[in-house]
Amino acid sequence: MPQDTILLAYSGGLDTSVCVKWLQEKHDARVVTLTVDLGMVDLEDIRSRALQTGAADALTVDGREDFVNEYVFPALQAGAIYEEQYPLATALGRPLIAKYMVEAARRVGAGAIAHGCTGKGNDQVRMDVSVGALDPRLKVIAPVREWGWNREEEMEYARSHGIPVEERKSRFSTDENLWGRSIEAGELEDPWLEPPEDAFAWTNPISKTPEEPTYLEIAFEGGLPFSLNGEEMRPVDLVQHLNALAGRNGVGRIDHIENRLVGIKSREVYESPAGVVLHAAHKALESMTLSKEQARMKRHVAGEYSDVVYNGLWFTAHRRDLTAYVESAQRHVTGSVRLRLHKGNCVVVGRKAAKGLYSHQLATYDRGDAFDHRASEGFIAIYGLPVRTQAREQGE
Amino acid sequence: MPQDTILLAYSGGLDTSVCVKWLQEKHDARVVTLTVDLGMVDLEDIRSRALQTGAADALTVDGREDFVNEYVFPALQAGAIYEEQYPLATALGRPLIAKYMVEAARRVGAGAIAHGCTGKGNDQVRMDVSVGALDPRLKVIAPVREWGWNREEEMEYARSHGIPVEERKSRFSTDENLWGRSIEAGELEDPWLEPPEDAFAWTNPISKTPEEPTYLEIAFEGGLPFSLNGEEMRPVDLVQHLNALAGRNGVGRIDHIENRLVGIKSREVYESPAGVVLHAAHKALESMTLSKEQARMKRHVAGEYSDVVYNGLWFTAHRRDLTAYVESAQRHVTGSVRLRLHKGNCVVVGRKAAKGLYSHQLATYDRGDAFDHRASEGFIAIYGLPVRTQAREQGE
Amino acid sequence: MPQDTILLAYSGGLDTSVCVKWLQEKHDARVVTLTVDLGMVDLEDIRSRALQTGAADALTVDGREDFVNEYVFPALQAGAIYEEQYPLATALGRPLIAKYMVEAARRVGAGAIAHGCTGKGNDQVRMDVSVGALDPRLKVIAPVREWGWNREEEMEYARSHGIPVEERKSRFSTDENLWGRSIEAGELEDPWLEPPEDAFAWTNPISKTPEEPTYLEIAFEGGLPFSLNGEEMRPVDLVQHLNALAGRNGVGRIDHIENRLVGIKSREVYESPAGVVLHAAHKALESMTLSKEQARMKRHVAGEYSDVVYNGLWFTAHRRDLTAYVESAQRHVTGSVRLRLHKGNCVVVGRKAAKGLYSHQLATYDRGDAFDHRASEGFIAIYGLPVRTQAREQGE
Amino acid sequence: MPQDTILLAYSGGLDTSVCVKWLQEKHDARVVTLTVDLGMVDLEDIRSRALQTGAADALTVDGREDFVNEYVFPALQAGAIYEEQYPLATALGRPLIAKYMVEAARRVGAGAIAHGCTGKGNDQVRMDVSVGALDPRLKVIAPVREWGWNREEEMEYARSHGIPVEERKSRFSTDENLWGRSIEAGELEDPWLEPPEDAFAWTNPISKTPEEPTYLEIAFEGGLPFSLNGEEMRPVDLVQHLNALAGRNGVGRIDHIENRLVGIKSREVYESPAGVVLHAAHKALESMTLSKEQARMKRHVAGEYSDVVYNGLWFTAHRRDLTAYVESAQRHVTGSVRLRLHKGNCVVVGRKAAKGLYSHQLATYDRGDAFDHRASEGFIAIYGLPVRTQAREQGE
Repeated sequence: MPQDTILLAYSGGLDTSVCVKWLQEKHDARVVTLTVDLGMVDLEDIRSRALQTGAADALTVDGREDFVNEYVFPALQAGAIYEEQYPLATALGRPLIAKYMVEAARRVGAGAIAHGCTGKGNDQVRMDVSVGALDPRLKVIAPVREWGWNREEEMEYARSHGIPVEERKSRFSTDENLWGRSIEAGELEDPWLEPPEDAFAWTNPISKTPEEPTYLEIAFEGGLPFSLNGEEMRPVDLVQHLNALAGRNGVGRIDHIENRLVGIKSREVYESPAGVVLHAAHKALESMTLSKEQARMKRHVAGEYSDVVYNGLWFTAHRRDLTAYVESAQRHVTGSVRLRLHKGNCVVVGRKAAKGLYSHQLATYDRGDAFDHRASEGFIAIYGLPVRTQAREQGE
Repeated sequence: MPQDTILLAYSGGLDTSVCVKWLQEKHDARVVTLTVDLGMVDLEDIRSRALQTGAADALTVDGREDFVNEYVFPALQAGAIYEEQYPLATALGRPLIAKYMVEAARRVGAGAIAHGCTGKGNDQVRMDVSVGALDPRLKVIAPVREWGWNREEEMEYARSHGIPVEERKSRFSTDENLWGRSIEAGELEDPWLEPPEDAFAWTNPISKTPEEPTYLEIAFEGGLPFSLNGEEMRPVDLVQHLNALAGRNGVGRIDHIENRLVGIKSREVYESPAGVVLHAAHKALESMTLSKEQARMKRHVAGEYSDVVYNGLWFTAHRRDLTAYVESAQRHVTGSVRLRLHKGNCVVVGRKAAKGLYSHQLATYDRGDAFDHRASEGFIAIYGLPVRTQAREQGE
Repeated sequence: MPQDTILLAYSGGLDTSVCVKWLQEKHDARVVTLTVDLGMVDLEDIRSRALQTGAADALTVDGREDFVNEYVFPALQAGAIYEEQYPLATALGRPLIAKYMVEAARRVGAGAIAHGCTGKGNDQVRMDVSVGALDPRLKVIAPVREWGWNREEEMEYARSHGIPVEERKSRFSTDENLWGRSIEAGELEDPWLEPPEDAFAWTNPISKTPEEPTYLEIAFEGGLPFSLNGEEMRPVDLVQHLNALAGRNGVGRIDHIENRLVGIKSREVYESPAGVVLHAAHKALESMTLSKEQARMKRHVAGEYSDVVYNGLWFTAHRRDLTAYVESAQRHVTGSVRLRLHKGNCVVVGRKAAKGLYSHQLATYDRGDAFDHRASEGFIAIYGLPVRTQAREQGE
Repeated sequence: MPQDTILLAYSGGLDTSVCVKWLQEKHDARVVTLTVDLGMVDLEDIRSRALQTGAADALTVDGREDFVNEYVFPALQAGAIYEEQYPLATALGRPLIAKYMVEAARRVGAGAIAHGCTGKGNDQVRMDVSVGALDPRLKVIAPVREWGWNREEEMEYARSHGIPVEERKSRFSTDENLWGRSIEAGELEDPWLEPPEDAFAWTNPISKTPEEPTYLEIAFEGGLPFSLNGEEMRPVDLVQHLNALAGRNGVGRIDHIENRLVGIKSREVYESPAGVVLHAAHKALESMTLSKEQARMKRHVAGEYSDVVYNGLWFTAHRRDLTAYVESAQRHVTGSVRLRLHKGNCVVVGRKAAKGLYSHQLATYDRGDAFDHRASEGFIAIYGLPVRTQAREQGE
C-alpha cells in the first residue's frame, strides 16, 4: 500500500523542519513541502533545505504579484486597518498561502495539509478556516499545536533526527512579507517597555534618518496606486520602493495592544512603511472624492473588512459582499496625493482629484462666494427644530 | 419706552466690533457684550475695547475650568475625534459660550442674543442650536450672516462709525482655545498646497525641534488624566503644560479635508498638541482595559459622539445617552501611559493599568504558558463550521 | 419675446390645478403638465383635466414597470423599511417622478420645474434634491410652499379663476402607488386615537376577512420575486395580485409615529399589502441563505438604504454603493417561501432555498448527528477566555 | 477522605436524572441538585424526584421576581430581540440560573457545577461562560456533552440504574419560563413544514380565538411597564396576565431560522405572548419620546444587547456599558400605550407620553400651523448642496 502524501507549508525554520520528520514518523507519510514567496523569501535556499531535511519533494511559488494585486491592494482600497493600527500584513498573506496549498495538494495528490502554526495564535485559525473553505475534504494537521513541546524538547527531537539547529539569530520571533513585518516575544511581551532598537529591521530610528524631508507624489486610479513621483510602477515595485523610502525616513513603526482572535490581548510590534504611506495617501484622496455619507459608511465597512481579514474569513461570502461595496465606492478615487516623509513622520501635504468634491468657490472665506448665506437661516430653523422641541418637552 | 437689550458674543475683532454699532443702529437696542476666556483671551483688553466701541456694558467670564472639566475631558473620554482627525476644539467651545450667553442674557434682561458667525460655517449652527436648546424663547441675531457685506464694505462701515480698524496681522483666519487652534483662509484653501510655516503658532517645525526626545508619563483615573510625570495637576494646567511640551516637539499639527455641517468640504488646518497627546495616551490605556467587544462598541460611540459635538448637538438627550455609555466604559481606564515626543512624532512606548486585561501568562510565546493549545482545535472546528457549510453549499 | 415654459408635476387635484393658473399669472409662463402613473392613476382623465384648467400641453407617462423594476424591487432586495415600519411607497415614487420630470423638461424646453408639495413634508425635499441631482441648472418652483394660503384662500383663488372645486371626498389626505397608500390628516393626527375604519381602502377589517386562511408560495431568484403559487408573473402583476390577496385578508396596515426629514414627528398610517408580504417572504429566504455575519451587515445596510430613500437621496453615489453591496448579498437568495394570510396575519410557514445554509444533519436534535459535540469544550474554553479574564481582573 | 460535592442544575427530566447517577458513579461525588423556578416549575415535585433519584440534597429557588425584574425588564427596555425575532426567554434565564448555581455551590461547598446541556446548543455556552465569569475557579461538568449517548443508550442506563423513565409526552423538546416557551425537534426540523398545532401550548390557533378584540392599556414609567388597564401590577403578575390575555387571542407565536452561537442555523419555534405585546408597546412609546437620533442609536444598541444576551455574555462589562446607555435613554419613556389583540394580531392603536416629542401644532396638515414653511427652502438649498455638487462633479 502506497504511503499517503501530506503537503507541508514550509518556511525553512526549525519548527517546520521538525514537522517534516515528525509527519513522516507519526503519520508514516510522504511529506512534500511548499514554500511561498510573498516578498522576503529565498526560495532556492529553502527548497534545498527542505530536501536535505528529507522532504520527498519541495515545491515553491513566487506569490508576490498575486499577493499585492489580489490581497494587499483590495485591502488598501477597503481601508482595512485592524483596530485602527495594524495593516494586516501576515493576516493578508495566510489565505493566499492556503490557496496555494490547496492547489498544490490537488496536484501532488495529498489528502492532508500541514502547517507549523502554534495553538494560540491567529494564524492557525486563518490557515485551518481558509483550507476548510477551499476544500473541506482536506485534512489539516498542525504538528506544533499537537506535540506541545517546549523549545528544549523540540531541539532535542531535531538533534536526534539530524535536523540542523542553527543558533537563534534573535530573541524575537518575526514574520514578514511585502506588506509588513511583525515582531513578537522577548521583552516586547512587557507592554510597559519601549521596543528596543534591534527589534526593527526595515525602519531607521529617528536619529539615523535624513535631515531633509522626502517629498512623494502618489497617483491613484479607482483607489489603486499606480505611480510614484510621476513614474508608473507595477504594484510589487511600488510597494518595495515605498518600503525603502519610508523605512529610510523612519516611517512605518506600529506598537499596540491587539485583541487576538483567540480571546487574548497581545502586544504587537510591526513595521509597515509602505502600508502606512499608502493608507495615509488613500484616505486623503478619499477625503476629496467621497461624500460625507459615503465616508461615514466606508469607515464602517473598513472596520468590518479588517475584522474579516484578521479573523481568517477571507474566503467567505461576507468578504465578497464587502468587496462589492468597496469597489463601487472607489469609482472616483482617482487623483494624486503629495506626502512629506521626515523624521518618522508621514504627512499628507496636498491632494487633488480628477472629480473631487472640494469646491473652492463654495469653501472660500472670501466674501462674494458661491454659497447662499441666507439659506443658512432656514436650514438652522429646521435642523434645530427637534432639538428645541426636545428641550421644551423634556428639558430639565 | 426703554430700549431692548441685546447680548452680543464679543471677541474684540473687527466683525463683532462692527456688530456693536450695527445692532445699535439697526435694532435701536442697548448692546451688552460678553467675552469668554476659554484659554487664550485677554479679558481686560477686550472688555475695554467693547466699551470704547460703545457697548452699554461689557461682561467677561473665565470659562477655562468649565471648558476643560465639562467639555474637553468628557470628549477625551469619549474618544471624540471628528472624521478621525479633528479633536473638536472650537466645536467644544461653542456650546459652553452659548451657555454663558444664555445665563448672562437672563441676568441683563436681554431678549436677544447676537453673535458674529458667518452664514457658511459650522459655528452659526452650533450657536443657534445651542441657544435654542437652552432657551427657545431667546431670539438669535447673526449680523454678519444678515448684512452680507464684503470686506471692503465692512471696513467702510467701521471707519464711518469710528471703529478702529487694525492692520490685519495675518492672511489667515484663526480661532483658538485651550484645546486647539484652527487656521483657515489664504492659500490653505488650495488643498494641493502645503500649509506654509507661518500658519502655525503653537508647534515648531521639525527643523526647530529639540534633537533629544521628550518622554512623558501621564496617569489616568477612570479615563481622566490627572498627573504628568508623577506630578498631579489640575486639568487646565495639564492641558497647558502638554500644549507647550508637545508643541515644542512639533507635535499636534493636523491638515485634512473636512465635511462641514452645511454641506461643503473645506480644508482645515489645526494645531492641537495636548489633544493629540492625550487622545493617543487615552486610547493606549483603553487598549489595555477594554475588552474586544467594548473596544469595538466604543469606536462606534466615539464616531457618534464626535458627530454630535461637531454638529452642534451638545445639549441633546442623544449626547446625554452617549455620555452614560462612555462613563460606564471608563470605569477601569485607570493606569499610566508613557509617550515619546520627538521631531513631530507622538509615540506611545508603554502602558500599564491597575486592572488591565493583558495577561503575560496567556500572551507569552514561551512554551509552558497558561493557554490551552488543544482547545484551539475545538474552537476552530466550530468557529469555521459556518464557513465550511457556506463553501460547500454556495461555493463556486 | 416668447414665454418661458414651466413643467408642472400634475396630479389632477385642487393644489396642482391652482398651480397651473398661479404659475401662468405669477411667472407669466407657458405651463405644461406631466402626470405619472405609478399604479393608481387614470391618465386620460387627469390629462383632460389639465387641459381644461389651461395647461398648454399635458403629458403622461405610464411608469409602473420602471417603478417596480428599478425602484420597488431593489428596495425589497435591500430590505428597506424606514424605522422598521414603512415600506417607503411614496418615498420610492418621488425620485422616479423627478426623473420623468427632468427628461420631459428637456423635451419641452422648460427651464423650470414645479410641483405641488407643501413646505413641511418630506416630498418637497425628495423632489427638489432629486431634480438638483439630475440637472442642477433646472429651477424648481413650489407654489404651495410659496403662496402660504390656507384652504379657504386657495378655494377662493380657484373659484375666481374658474378652476372646478370638487367636494372633498374624505377628511383624509392620501397618496398611493403600487407599493402602498398613505393616509394622513383628520383625527389621525391624534396619536392616541385608533385609525377609523374609513381611513383604509385596500385592506379589509378583520371582521370582514375570509374565515379560511389563504396559503401562498412565492419564488425568488437572486432576491427578486418572480412567481406566485407556481405561476410566473411580471413584477407589476405580482405586486397587484398580492395587494389584492393580502388586502382581502386584512394584511398590510401600518400605523406608527415617524421621524420626518424636516425635524418633526408625525403619525403615519399606511396600507402596503404586497409590501408587507414580500418583505416577510424575502427576509425568510435570506434567513436560509445568508450567513450570520452577512445577515448582521445586511441589517445595517438595510437601515442605511431605507434612510437614503426616505431622505430623498436616491440619486447619490451613496445609494449606488449600497446597491452594489445588496446585489452581491442577493446572489444566492433563490428559493421559495410559503406564507399563510389569515385574519390580518401574514405568517411565514415554510422556506426552502436552492443553496441554503440550513443543514438538517447539523441542526437536528437526534443523537447521531453530524455535529462534533466534543469540539464544544474547546470552543467554549477559548470563547469564554476573555470573559473569565475580565471577571478576574475587573470583577467587583 | 470525604467525597467532593457536585452541584447539579436539575430540571426533573430524564437527562438530568441520569446525570445524578452518572456523576455519582463517574466522579465518585456527592451530588446536590438545584432547581430554579423561572415561571413554570413545580419545585416540590421536582425536589422529591431529585431525592428519589439519589441526590444527597435537593435545593430550590423561586427566581421569578429576580428573573423579571433584573433580566426580562432590562432586556425589554433595551429592545433586545435576537435577529429581530426572538425575545430571548431561555437566553435570559441561563445567566440567572448560573448565578444561583454559583451562590449555592458556595453554600454547599461544591467545587464543581454540572448541567444537562448538550454539546451543540447555545445553553452550554451560556452556562459555562456565566459560571466562568462569576467564579472562574469552579469546574463545570456537562455529562450529556461528555457521554455522547443516543437516546436508547441513555434509557438503558436509566433503567439499569433504577431511574424512572416516563413515556415521552411529546415528540418535541421544549423549554419554558415566564418570558416564553421554545419548541424544537420533530418535524419542526424541516423548515419547509408549517409547525403543527400541537407544538403550541400557550397560544390559541386563530380559529379558537375570541371573535371580539381585546383592548389593553399598558402604562410605563422610565421604560418599565407597571400597570395594565389602569391597574398597577407587580412585574411577575403583569407578565403572567399578558401571557394569558395575549395567548388567548393567538398572539405570540414566532417561527424563524436562527443563527446559533455554535455556527449552525436552526429552525426555532417560540411562544412569547407577553414578550410580543410588551415589546410592541415599549417600541411605540419610544417612538413618541426618543428623538430620531436617539432612536437610530437605540436600534444599534438593541442589536448589540440582544447579541450579548443570546451569546451568553450577560456577566460582562460590555453588557454593563450597554445597560448604562439604555437606562439613560429610558429616562422619559413614560406614558401609556393602547393595543388591540385580535385573531393573532397585536396592534398598537394609541400612544401618549408624559413628555412626548410629538407636537400636533407642528405635525398637523391644517394650514395655519406652527411650522415655518419658508424655512424649508433654505433647508433644502443646504441639505441638497452636497448632492448637487457630487452630481455635477461625478455624475455620469
